[in-house]
Amino acid sequence: MDQHEGTFPEIAPWASPVARARMAEVAAGLGGLWDRPSAAEVLATVRHLLREHTRQFDEEGIVLYAGTNVMSPAARQVAETTLGGRPSMGWPGEKYQAGLDWLDPLEVLVPALISRLVGARFAEVRSHSATMANLAVYTALTEPGDTIAVLPERAGGHTSHHTVGVPGVRGLRVVDLPYDTDAYDVDLAALPGFLERERPRLVVIGASLLLFPHRIAQIKEAVAQAGAVLMYDASHVAGLVAAGRFQRPLAEGADLLTFSTYKSFGGPPGGVIATDDEELAEKVSTAVFPALTANYDAGRLAPLAVTAAEIGEDGGAYADRCIAAARALAAALSEEGFTVAGADRGFTDSHHVAVDVAELGGGRAVMARLAEAGIYLSAIGLPWQRPGEADRGLRIGTQEVVRRGLGEEELRQVAALMADLLLRGADPATVRKAVVRIRKETGSA
Amino acid sequence: MDQHEGTFPEIAPWASPVARARMAEVAAGLGGLWDRPSAAEVLATVRHLLREHTRQFDEEGIVLYAGTNVMSPAARQVAETTLGGRPSMGWPGEKYQAGLDWLDPLEVLVPALISRLVGARFAEVRSHSATMANLAVYTALTEPGDTIAVLPERAGGHTSHHTVGVPGVRGLRVVDLPYDTDAYDVDLAALPGFLERERPRLVVIGASLLLFPHRIAQIKEAVAQAGAVLMYDASHVAGLVAAGRFQRPLAEGADLLTFSTYKSFGGPPGGVIATDDEELAEKVSTAVFPALTANYDAGRLAPLAVTAAEIGEDGGAYADRCIAAARALAAALSEEGFTVAGADRGFTDSHHVAVDVAELGGGRAVMARLAEAGIYLSAIGLPWQRPGEADRGLRIGTQEVVRRGLGEEELRQVAALMADLLLRGADPATVRKAVVRIRKETGSA
Repeated sequence: MDQHEGTFPEIAPWASPVARARMAEVAAGLGGLWDRPSAAEVLATVRHLLREHTRQFDEEGIVLYAGTNVMSPAARQVAETTLGGRPSMGWPGEKYQAGLDWLDPLEVLVPALISRLVGARFAEVRSHSATMANLAVYTALTEPGDTIAVLPERAGGHTSHHTVGVPGVRGLRVVDLPYDTDAYDVDLAALPGFLERERPRLVVIGASLLLFPHRIAQIKEAVAQAGAVLMYDASHVAGLVAAGRFQRPLAEGADLLTFSTYKSFGGPPGGVIATDDEELAEKVSTAVFPALTANYDAGRLAPLAVTAAEIGEDGGAYADRCIAAARALAAALSEEGFTVAGADRGFTDSHHVAVDVAELGGGRAVMARLAEAGIYLSAIGLPWQRPGEADRGLRIGTQEVVRRGLGEEELRQVAALMADLLLRGADPATVRKAVVRIRKETGSA
Repeated sequence: MDQHEGTFPEIAPWASPVARARMAEVAAGLGGLWDRPSAAEVLATVRHLLREHTRQFDEEGIVLYAGTNVMSPAARQVAETTLGGRPSMGWPGEKYQAGLDWLDPLEVLVPALISRLVGARFAEVRSHSATMANLAVYTALTEPGDTIAVLPERAGGHTSHHTVGVPGVRGLRVVDLPYDTDAYDVDLAALPGFLERERPRLVVIGASLLLFPHRIAQIKEAVAQAGAVLMYDASHVAGLVAAGRFQRPLAEGADLLTFSTYKSFGGPPGGVIATDDEELAEKVSTAVFPALTANYDAGRLAPLAVTAAEIGEDGGAYADRCIAAARALAAALSEEGFTVAGADRGFTDSHHVAVDVAELGGGRAVMARLAEAGIYLSAIGLPWQRPGEADRGLRIGTQEVVRRGLGEEELRQVAALMADLLLRGADPATVRKAVVRIRKETGSA
């Protein structure tokens, strides 16, 4: 095909030795498929990979990873469209493209449904991701060189709030908010002085691990005093917030709410920005389109409409089940002997659970061990870890296992299996059999 | 549900009166569905909208819009997965998430296949869109305040190259390259002086309307002399480039190639950045992840692998059909009396055709008239239009009609129908019947 034919495809020679070794192993397993592009052979390979992934992860695994979810059966019914390749640029009535009139109602219905759920006047739903939604806010409200204040990484501050992520793309200076480890929240006493010193244009709260609500009213008071804007990134807790559980960020004082539409929200991937303020709404909307997107992928809107309607209809039942499941799992893990965060406050008010596994080898090592047994989650930093210390924690979200039909009883079994594996020296293969049995015997969404 | 219940959902009160009127009309048609979120009713509505859209646009319409396509049947077979909500962050072997090992081969195979097709050592395939791919390049190679030089909008310079788009997000100064209208290309004589004056860090070529190849070697010489980097955005012509047709931007001298993976490439939506330069590859890769994406949507990789394999397998047959169709349509439109661009050079070397319709009311008005008859395309600026003049042109791409099975004979019929409607005063409803007949009688992909 060209001068590179026959050479080994080194995807990223700058990656770590571990990653390069894994990519070389994978490439060897593909047997040079890239050098003889046979569509039938590639199709067969891809189908095999998807089938095996589905078996291992979706059918047999217990997915406790907080950053994922599966859509409801109804939402999935309308997710299989070809709309992704149909750019729909501009508002209904003045789109750049002709012939997309039947998408206009989706483009009105989805923002209307979602703004109702989160208690906002405006919902901008066209961002590809919550990361892009956050970048749209940064673009709308800051100039390169401005300062924003965000939660420290050890307190769940997401990459998309830090210099390595989209704030760096916008050229922002990023400072860590003072944090009160005991309160699992911003340090309210230190906040006014901090804001006066650092003069951020924007303060970002809402974390990738959020066990207890932020004290938004008090934070807002200090932020407003300093002339800054308060944004709450509800990517993880959006499903609870939309159901009226956990907290109501806009009603409590946040100026802007951003979130991811999968995770606990349970819809297709995508990002939302909601606000009551028309001036902010116009600015962020312009940052989403035309600044950051041409084709926003209208295909996302169909399952998103159904997901939003389901959240509105079920009266918070799914959110309540997620929270109850998290509390049951946390309590069971604690009883098994794990160090579960937030023990003195009932472990969690959300669907998240955090476990300190520093003494078991740290988050990454324990995550890998659990994966051998078919239990999938991720490592995370914990507020009390020392600067530079590797992630001490495991983060758990119950939004997917609840969709899969696992209840409090099954989650107690999961806690026991985790203890068998990590505390009592059980063999991963044995634990995995029990994991698969729980999935096979439990109703699946 | 909240204090806004019962009020009319004004999605964007800052939008134009035309857009607001259309959104109000659409909202009225939805009959308050957003205030009684019944999942069954929303699902039924969404299914109805998708069905009508599919009928009007996919089954009965003749889609000549250049910025779209439909995937092949084989690619569609693997497009219906739930992978979109499965974040896969980091290289195989060191992902943030556990349990995604079966996706590792996709993450090696897709860059390998695509880099082979475009003749590059490296292909970064994780951008959500070509716009994000372009922003990744800007992030990697410029600092806020730097200058980039791009094609003027009247010469097809895309939003994502201009201040209103992602260069504004990065805080860049954007200047228009000197343009030679007769050559449909950068003004080679004026280029060196321009570069010396403006000192751009990056020069961007490759347009949203690209009838003839850029003279890359000469452009590159001047750009290299000025110490700048040359990027070619092949979003529209990627399917031709990947098939070895039109031009080979990297082999001819471009440092970086970006493109969209649907449009003429024919895959799922997404963006690619390809280069031979390892240092550039590492920089743009880091800008894509972790700077701009967390979840890149691994679900795109499965159909993208199949699409790339199909391009590699068919030996350029699809690309050749697209180019032949464009030339046949252009010649027929010219014979019918339309002012077709590039007449002295055989109209086009790509799958694009441009028609100057200033005397027929301008691009937007003619686009709307054609849409009434079931022929869908978009308006576009043309190189010879005056500053501030509304878009004079119609832009046509043949990538979709060729997939639908329309050949040169059918495209001559389409040209005659366009002339009936626009030059001979035929009724849109009558023309629409003929349009539907062509689609019904022609094999559909």
